[in-house]
Amino acid sequence: MKVEIVSVGTELLLGDIVNTNTAYLSKELAALGLAVFRQTTVGDNRERLLRTLESAFSENDTVIITGGLGPTDDDITKECVAEYFGREFYFHEYSWVKILERLTRTGRNIITENNKKQAMIPDGAIVLENFCGTAPGIIIEENNKRIILMPGPPREMRDMFEKSVKPYLEKYSKKKFISKYIRFYGIGESLLETKIKDIMDRQINPTLALYAKSGEVLLRITASAEEEIECENMINEQLEEIESREGVGEYIYLVGNEAISSSQTELHSVVANLLIENNYTISIAESLTGGKIASMLVEKSGISDSLLEGIVCYSNKSKITALGVKEETLKRFGAVSEEVASEMVVGVAKRLNSDFAIATTGIAGPNSDESGKPVGLVYIAIYSQGEVTIKECLFFGDRELIRYRASIEALNETRKNILKKL
Amino acid sequence: MKVEIVSVGTELLLGDIVNTNTAYLSKELAALGLAVFRQTTVGDNRERLLRTLESAFSENDTVIITGGLGPTDDDITKECVAEYFGREFYFHEYSWVKILERLTRTGRNIITENNKKQAMIPDGAIVLENFCGTAPGIIIEENNKRIILMPGPPREMRDMFEKSVKPYLEKYSKKKFISKYIRFYGIGESLLETKIKDIMDRQINPTLALYAKSGEVLLRITASAEEEIECENMINEQLEEIESREGVGEYIYLVGNEAISSSQTELHSVVANLLIENNYTISIAESLTGGKIASMLVEKSGISDSLLEGIVCYSNKSKITALGVKEETLKRFGAVSEEVASEMVVGVAKRLNSDFAIATTGIAGPNSDESGKPVGLVYIAIYSQGEVTIKECLFFGDRELIRYRASIEALNETRKNILKKL
Repeated sequence: MKVEIVSVGTELLLGDIVNTNTAYLSKELAALGLAVFRQTTVGDNRERLLRTLESAFSENDTVIITGGLGPTDDDITKECVAEYFGREFYFHEYSWVKILERLTRTGRNIITENNKKQAMIPDGAIVLENFCGTAPGIIIEENNKRIILMPGPPREMRDMFEKSVKPYLEKYSKKKFISKYIRFYGIGESLLETKIKDIMDRQINPTLALYAKSGEVLLRITASAEEEIECENMINEQLEEIESREGVGEYIYLVGNEAISSSQTELHSVVANLLIENNYTISIAESLTGGKIASMLVEKSGISDSLLEGIVCYSNKSKITALGVKEETLKRFGAVSEEVASEMVVGVAKRLNSDFAIATTGIAGPNSDESGKPVGLVYIAIYSQGEVTIKECLFFGDRELIRYRASIEALNETRKNILKKL
Repeated sequence: MKVEIVSVGTELLLGDIVNTNTAYLSKELAALGLAVFRQTTVGDNRERLLRTLESAFSENDTVIITGGLGPTDDDITKECVAEYFGREFYFHEYSWVKILERLTRTGRNIITENNKKQAMIPDGAIVLENFCGTAPGIIIEENNKRIILMPGPPREMRDMFEKSVKPYLEKYSKKKFISKYIRFYGIGESLLETKIKDIMDRQINPTLALYAKSGEVLLRITASAEEEIECENMINEQLEEIESREGVGEYIYLVGNEAISSSQTELHSVVANLLIENNYTISIAESLTGGKIASMLVEKSGISDSLLEGIVCYSNKSKITALGVKEETLKRFGAVSEEVASEMVVGVAKRLNSDFAIATTGIAGPNSDESGKPVGLVYIAIYSQGEVTIKECLFFGDRELIRYRASIEALNETRKNILKKL
């Protein structure tokens, strides 16, 4: 099966929205072992849509279209597809009942003739119910070709794909495809690539791909085989080789399934899990990161017993009153210093006697403070059951990036300190 | 000028990354008044790339390609373009010097023959320097057609577009296009649409477009004219009509330029500005939001004198010791209650005597606490120079969405309270 994905919508051509539907569908199709050969975006324009269909079917046998199924006059995807296949429309009672139900439930009491347009279906098409919106999807099959139409709003499209389109496509997928994702922290993409170049070069099955995330690297291993268990075995064998390689394995902090593939980082969930599973408590004092580390840990449900307290001590006043940092230390070394970081972390740990504590202080920019220390200078202090360690870092980037990098660096240091205690 | 944007990269076809380059370029081109008629993505495959170029130039006169300019063998975009235009390559000394400089600066001491590939330029091409990476961009012009090649990594592409491609394209843009973005909080997209439907319907110039963000709505007004000042006048006239409409104007919280168009919210920067400009101080006590509100405010540089302190009081222990919430109140009403929210906000305001304070407590899910109160129930307390107001909210969505919605709702309540004091 050769697939082309077509997105319809003038808002995409204007760059007003980012096309996430195409990435979602491509990834889902790749997981089914179905190859996407082209992705195309066109506006709501009859001629161009028809030309796009012609060009798509000249090279591929399957076209998946999203968008342009709305009730208004400028939504013409279904009409163009029916024209392309020479099909007439009929009024689909079931879809109309469902549209009325949904419009009523969302409090719309004026239902116009326009709404009926969404219940019109081309002859011989398979109708896909829309559980999250009004526009039904359709599939038309003809001469070993098939076209699948889904609505454009991502929530509606994903739900319809999951419930109807995926089961429909699965019969065309012969092999199983399974991926695992390995997350590295502390090693750059190019150095990692160099270290495993021989493995990358000989890849056929499993295949490997490296992706740089902000501050970390993601490695995807994908295997295909008749059975899932075969895939798993192939992946595990490959993974073992990578893990055992010098200067590589020690930077791995998580091996997981596809749910982790799109997130920017998983360090916060790894740290949260370590705390929860081992009944450890933690407190956090954040100056430069300003609550970011606490907020990241709170993303994980079940953290309430572990995270005792966070202090956002953006002002010196707060550092003194809440954490017991000495005025003299602030004066002598400045707020961004090893000494203040150390007093902060001990101060926050002592407040509620937590097992671990994190403190951050630094210069996020765009300008330095009165000390003239460089933008990006950050001190990260970790308290680990009585011991304090301090790390001095210099991060590059804008304000948000420096704060983000400091947050994940602090989480990684915490992770390493917890692991030492296990 | 009719433009097609072509993205090259197998990782896009696999859905491993979302194509943000295309949205960025489309938006920039729209701002120049240049029309994008199609966006296409293909893999690193010679035949398909050549066919795509043919099809693109059969309908459009300008093609912008990103991606496939790397040093390795699978990067073939430049080669295909040279083949399409029948151009030979020559070794571009200046680019090579720049590539060497960059590789040395980033600590690479092994420079391979492969790297030289990036310094090869098709005869007669305009070379675009890459200030953020190694691959130079190129422009080839022939018979009223032009092709522009830029590297795929977004940071490199954006920098090159801004510095070289935009000035190059500006000479093709006859009219000025200016957009303003209006941000609404507290009114839904469909209700807003209904209220300004007559204006939306008669739009020609300026044009209007509505976008739903998480929890808020963005309205874009775009005007085109010979001169910028004409555009500004047209937009302002349109804006006045919208602002003065009943049940519409009062939900506007910001009118700004394109920098605000892509952000999820601007409530945090509006609140930060109000605090900074009026020398007001604020403290924050966050249970459910866990540091998110503080962290959002800290995104704004210059907030250090205003944000006195944040307390992430995720545990009851912290609510008692740091904020002085009474054990009895917690027992009697539960942590998620109007009463606790009220004691929290007064407690945090009193710690360092801030002018304003925010407190949040709620149930983020996925499960309720022992009280059995519904997931999504949130109490937001605002302290405003001695007065306390409490808002009870019920948010829908997953854990992260509930925490986000609570954060922006709290920021909006803070905004309204500060405005009352001015």
